[in-house]
Amino acid sequence: MNTINIGMVGHNFMGKAHSHAWRTAPRFFDLPLTPRMTALAGRDAGRVGAAAATLGWESTETDWRRLIEREDVDLVDICVPGDLHAEIATAALEAGKHVLCEKPLANTVAEAERMVAAAEAAQARGVFAMCGFSYRRTPALTLAKRLVDSGALGPIRHVRAQYLQDWLTDENTPLTWRLDKDKSGSGSLGDIGAHIIDAAQWIAGSDLTGVSALLTTFVADRPIGGDFVGLGGTGGTDGPRGPVTVDDAAMFTARFADGAVGVFEATRFALGRKNAMRLELNGSKASLAFDFEDMNALWFYDAADEPNAGFRRIQATEPEHPYTGNWWPVGHGLGYEHAFTHQAVDFIEAIAQGQAPSPSFAEALQVQRVLEAVATSAADESRWTAI
Amino acid sequence: MNTINIGMVGHNFMGKAHSHAWRTAPRFFDLPLTPRMTALAGRDAGRVGAAAATLGWESTETDWRRLIEREDVDLVDICVPGDLHAEIATAALEAGKHVLCEKPLANTVAEAERMVAAAEAAQARGVFAMCGFSYRRTPALTLAKRLVDSGALGPIRHVRAQYLQDWLTDENTPLTWRLDKDKSGSGSLGDIGAHIIDAAQWIAGSDLTGVSALLTTFVADRPIGGDFVGLGGTGGTDGPRGPVTVDDAAMFTARFADGAVGVFEATRFALGRKNAMRLELNGSKASLAFDFEDMNALWFYDAADEPNAGFRRIQATEPEHPYTGNWWPVGHGLGYEHAFTHQAVDFIEAIAQGQAPSPSFAEALQVQRVLEAVATSAADESRWTAI
Amino acid sequence: MNTINIGMVGHNFMGKAHSHAWRTAPRFFDLPLTPRMTALAGRDAGRVGAAAATLGWESTETDWRRLIEREDVDLVDICVPGDLHAEIATAALEAGKHVLCEKPLANTVAEAERMVAAAEAAQARGVFAMCGFSYRRTPALTLAKRLVDSGALGPIRHVRAQYLQDWLTDENTPLTWRLDKDKSGSGSLGDIGAHIIDAAQWIAGSDLTGVSALLTTFVADRPIGGDFVGLGGTGGTDGPRGPVTVDDAAMFTARFADGAVGVFEATRFALGRKNAMRLELNGSKASLAFDFEDMNALWFYDAADEPNAGFRRIQATEPEHPYTGNWWPVGHGLGYEHAFTHQAVDFIEAIAQGQAPSPSFAEALQVQRVLEAVATSAADESRWTAI
Amino acid sequence: MNTINIGMVGHNFMGKAHSHAWRTAPRFFDLPLTPRMTALAGRDAGRVGAAAATLGWESTETDWRRLIEREDVDLVDICVPGDLHAEIATAALEAGKHVLCEKPLANTVAEAERMVAAAEAAQARGVFAMCGFSYRRTPALTLAKRLVDSGALGPIRHVRAQYLQDWLTDENTPLTWRLDKDKSGSGSLGDIGAHIIDAAQWIAGSDLTGVSALLTTFVADRPIGGDFVGLGGTGGTDGPRGPVTVDDAAMFTARFADGAVGVFEATRFALGRKNAMRLELNGSKASLAFDFEDMNALWFYDAADEPNAGFRRIQATEPEHPYTGNWWPVGHGLGYEHAFTHQAVDFIEAIAQGQAPSPSFAEALQVQRVLEAVATSAADESRWTAI
Repeated sequence: MNTINIGMVGHNFMGKAHSHAWRTAPRFFDLPLTPRMTALAGRDAGRVGAAAATLGWESTETDWRRLIEREDVDLVDICVPGDLHAEIATAALEAGKHVLCEKPLANTVAEAERMVAAAEAAQARGVFAMCGFSYRRTPALTLAKRLVDSGALGPIRHVRAQYLQDWLTDENTPLTWRLDKDKSGSGSLGDIGAHIIDAAQWIAGSDLTGVSALLTTFVADRPIGGDFVGLGGTGGTDGPRGPVTVDDAAMFTARFADGAVGVFEATRFALGRKNAMRLELNGSKASLAFDFEDMNALWFYDAADEPNAGFRRIQATEPEHPYTGNWWPVGHGLGYEHAFTHQAVDFIEAIAQGQAPSPSFAEALQVQRVLEAVATSAADESRWTAI
Repeated sequence: MNTINIGMVGHNFMGKAHSHAWRTAPRFFDLPLTPRMTALAGRDAGRVGAAAATLGWESTETDWRRLIEREDVDLVDICVPGDLHAEIATAALEAGKHVLCEKPLANTVAEAERMVAAAEAAQARGVFAMCGFSYRRTPALTLAKRLVDSGALGPIRHVRAQYLQDWLTDENTPLTWRLDKDKSGSGSLGDIGAHIIDAAQWIAGSDLTGVSALLTTFVADRPIGGDFVGLGGTGGTDGPRGPVTVDDAAMFTARFADGAVGVFEATRFALGRKNAMRLELNGSKASLAFDFEDMNALWFYDAADEPNAGFRRIQATEPEHPYTGNWWPVGHGLGYEHAFTHQAVDFIEAIAQGQAPSPSFAEALQVQRVLEAVATSAADESRWTAI
Repeated sequence: MNTINIGMVGHNFMGKAHSHAWRTAPRFFDLPLTPRMTALAGRDAGRVGAAAATLGWESTETDWRRLIEREDVDLVDICVPGDLHAEIATAALEAGKHVLCEKPLANTVAEAERMVAAAEAAQARGVFAMCGFSYRRTPALTLAKRLVDSGALGPIRHVRAQYLQDWLTDENTPLTWRLDKDKSGSGSLGDIGAHIIDAAQWIAGSDLTGVSALLTTFVADRPIGGDFVGLGGTGGTDGPRGPVTVDDAAMFTARFADGAVGVFEATRFALGRKNAMRLELNGSKASLAFDFEDMNALWFYDAADEPNAGFRRIQATEPEHPYTGNWWPVGHGLGYEHAFTHQAVDFIEAIAQGQAPSPSFAEALQVQRVLEAVATSAADESRWTAI
Repeated sequence: MNTINIGMVGHNFMGKAHSHAWRTAPRFFDLPLTPRMTALAGRDAGRVGAAAATLGWESTETDWRRLIEREDVDLVDICVPGDLHAEIATAALEAGKHVLCEKPLANTVAEAERMVAAAEAAQARGVFAMCGFSYRRTPALTLAKRLVDSGALGPIRHVRAQYLQDWLTDENTPLTWRLDKDKSGSGSLGDIGAHIIDAAQWIAGSDLTGVSALLTTFVADRPIGGDFVGLGGTGGTDGPRGPVTVDDAAMFTARFADGAVGVFEATRFALGRKNAMRLELNGSKASLAFDFEDMNALWFYDAADEPNAGFRRIQATEPEHPYTGNWWPVGHGLGYEHAFTHQAVDFIEAIAQGQAPSPSFAEALQVQRVLEAVATSAADESRWTAI
């Protein structure tokens, strides 16, 4: 069987998840190309070496440019903050490497547009690019997409999307790159809001055409250099503090091209909500609801069941459901990381078949345009802003 | 024991609920004044007579002005569409009658302001007015208020409020007064949005100061004169249709005076959601969540419980909880109508004690101002509109 | 319209619920006979007088025998502890009064058999008897019965029934008549176990044929004369204690006549479960689940929905659902007491139509036989005991 | 770092899960010994070769005796049906190999006793044995154990345990080894009942001392040689059928050594329940509830929270919770297979530290004794049977 050599840039939270995906995909799925974890790039030689040993990469680089130049790398997997996406992805595509780029695609629309141009040029040469909106491959959400595509919902009228976390609730949680606009582009908006924008547009099968938005920052400054644990952490209360330059919460109303209306909210201050990535779609014939905090379930209401209708808690673990037949018997739930494995599977299959993968950079650019419109509207008295 | 004589105007859905309240309150609560169901007013002599017999009223009037004039009426209970509220309430208060007026208080801010003036003048004479935001007296929501007032949540950062119903999903559900702007003032906004605006402000203990809104109408016209059942009904598909002149759905972002932000949504097109009046508040110390479709439960997350914290499903049926000690043992749930009974109890107690009841007309006027700001913003490209 | 005069014996928890039912039934349902709350009997003149005033009864008696003799009483409603049921019910039926008797029907099978004989003799004279297994009239459970009767479940294989409360968890909750075998016959078994036995047999449409049981008493003695609140209460820890002579928890496996197997559990020590009366039936085609702590919902799994099947949370509040069309719009939940109102409605309709009501005393005797078999098995090393 | 060489016997459902565990454990946990997937044994050379390639084993054997003899195998992982456990495990331990043996430990108590003797003899030589009751390492259940051990629940009065699946509901699901008593020892009892027996005893910290049981078989014969998919499958309806020689459902009441009572039920006919492995414990101070169909959540009721108590839905994904700090941020759920990875981690650590792992074979023997007592009681009119 042929091999596809992977080179990954970055080795923190996302790097850990992507490594698991490349390692696990060929053990559960019958792939046309076997991924080989060839090289890992990171700035610090000591840290990248340790990460490669832990995560299982065969070699390391301390400069992502070197990684891209390597002949034994076929696919570049970008797992670094958003300010570096455009440069790395463009260079990799030009070097003839397939690219998997974490979301959000970039920190600005201009960057994203350059990336789309590079991706389209590359595709003409059989080189493919994909953006890592991994939640699309959570089986319950993939099933949601299938149900909408099947026409089960009829015309969709309402979309409500929330992404609620609480790891910034404490005012002394330390500053990280995620709170620095230069690194991250935005706060809750790009970090988690991007996920629900992509998921909503993808599942509804319709793009947003305009928004009215409100952004807010609850905590203006935070401790520098605290002890960071996972996403959150605990800083000291006496040391120096630095400014938070991004939004703590983002809220907007929206219209979709097909006539639906939407309400979106992303925050990292919803105390008690740990990873409540929630979507609900109401059509004229059926409705769907999902909450990542119960990630193996999709709730489905079918008006055809009336008067004995009710939201059904479908456990998206049947052999007929997306991806799940390759794992365990029904009811034996999957976890967060499985979506990354499915993403790896689908990207490898797309490459092997010479078909464009999805989400394409163009789809991710559309998300970027929504993010920009949200920021524009919020800065202009919430005025309606077309996309 | 002394008696308080009730005269009620209107005898449809709300009239049925209010009648049950006046009848039931003295059987479960030890009241300072015993309500007597003295007179019921309705335009049609036959219909009001039948309603009085069914609902248990001693006499009838076919003109609300006659009801107000009656010396044996102490309290006027207004259960008719919003276009009549101002005239009846003002006249009743001037005639020295206490007034309980259904929500929304009026169809316009101007009307509501007149009503507040009348209420304040009356109060100086010991005559009281109250607006029927009954959900405040659902025990789980009263408990929510108590918890916020106790300081358990700390400063509140987020309020999310939804009122989702689905009885207009079918395009052939007939026109009723609720879809006629002249009668109802607005659609989902005033009908059900008013409830969540009031509940959110009351529980948070802070008024809205500005909004950015989106209103939409999905179904432009509907059958005239169909067979109306409950809130919904089934019309013919061939007969004449009339225009829907109100919003089918209302969405808005908001800021509260104390710094919190809010997201509100009201719709009657959320297929599968029957009466999902939902509130969630996230404070810096604790959070609360409620859904009327599971109305006896209040969900409470207390950060003090961490790391073994989680939203607790409190069954608001303990003897220590609001109102419930007068009913059944713990876990024996209450229903929709109990809030009306509690409203009757509290109004009677306020009157007997000579204390101003809540929600006052002034509080209801604040809701009216929010409704107006929402409409203004929606008509002006969702621009931020101060209240 | 004709009147049916009610005489009630007892005025505590059940008396309060029954009074509400007689008062409310004619206001929401179109009845063939209007109930009149004619007379209330209780031993203590002062207490029964106060209760009559509060609950709305026109007159009182201090001896139930007098109540039965009254010509202006058509129906005797028995709301006293089980040791008095047989004597009162038998006398009332012989006096030509219809009888509604609280559950469990009696404290022994022998008593219950005498009551059935009296009921059958009375029925031949057009006088009817009914036992108050009120949960049958909770709309979600009535809907469950309808679904089973329609054949939706196919042959039933499993029934699991639990009734979990926690009001005896505290060792110092005082002794009451419910803990005295002479008064109550048994503990959790007859008090709450009887409800799930009746509901399971009724909904499954099949009687139990044998059981293997375990009874246990966790707290051997409790304070005498403590301050009793609701079902529970708080006693002193220093005063005299008396023996608990009933079971604190009852558990048994069972077989039904139609081949299904069952598991039953009743306890008042399940800390955190306030009124978790739960039923689940698994058929070959569909399954049902119910929990009284979310009493307006019935969960329904239909294998015909596979692979997108899941338990549907049906809100049993549609106009098509049992009883609910007479109350509020969909999603506006009902409470505990509504089942008593429905019971009153159905009994009055049965009397007016001259049709035997259900649950009959014979059905209640079958429950009594199960209770006896459970006790027998538990006393004999859990040996299988036929019914 | 030192290596520990693994040899695994069997490569079906359990073999897939164990392979994933050995592969994944060193990538997320800092292990004292690095597992090497050295050899896989299976009877059929072609099938075992294909499995080794897919699952990632370095070499293969077609006779488990050869695997045991290999000097480069340090640990034997037994993933075959129960009739082979005793022979393989005993031989492996005698050969000085550590043994991880799938549950149930054996098909009879006699076999299990031999295995315990072998394990104890081996342990004296520093060779360890562990039984694969993997659910103990599902973080929410490990957290349950911690809470009980901390004294949070106080004395436990009730345990209710259910393991409900539905993959045998269809009468034409084909025969497999799991329905053949010679291979599997029993049906639902040993397959899934064993899991809840082990979990209940382990979490409660107390062994069962007696049971009264009922076993039943709903479908007497099934198609031979159908197309088997996952646990279930679809057989033809016309072909030959063979007898089901095991129980389809097992139910029993029980007593624990510390005074608690329990109700247990295991079935593969609970239509709609896919993998509902449920536990509830009620103590005098707190209660716990778990359902594997929502596997990342532990429900906890603490009486100290009263009157605002309620079951908290703890997401067992905090850094402080068992195992989860090594995976993802809070709220990013884990799946079924993670428990196997944790099992591998804990066994490797125990071996490295020279400490006896748990569940030991002796603990698994206790489960076996319960299984035998259940079968004995069921065969003797459900009579109480001591363990």
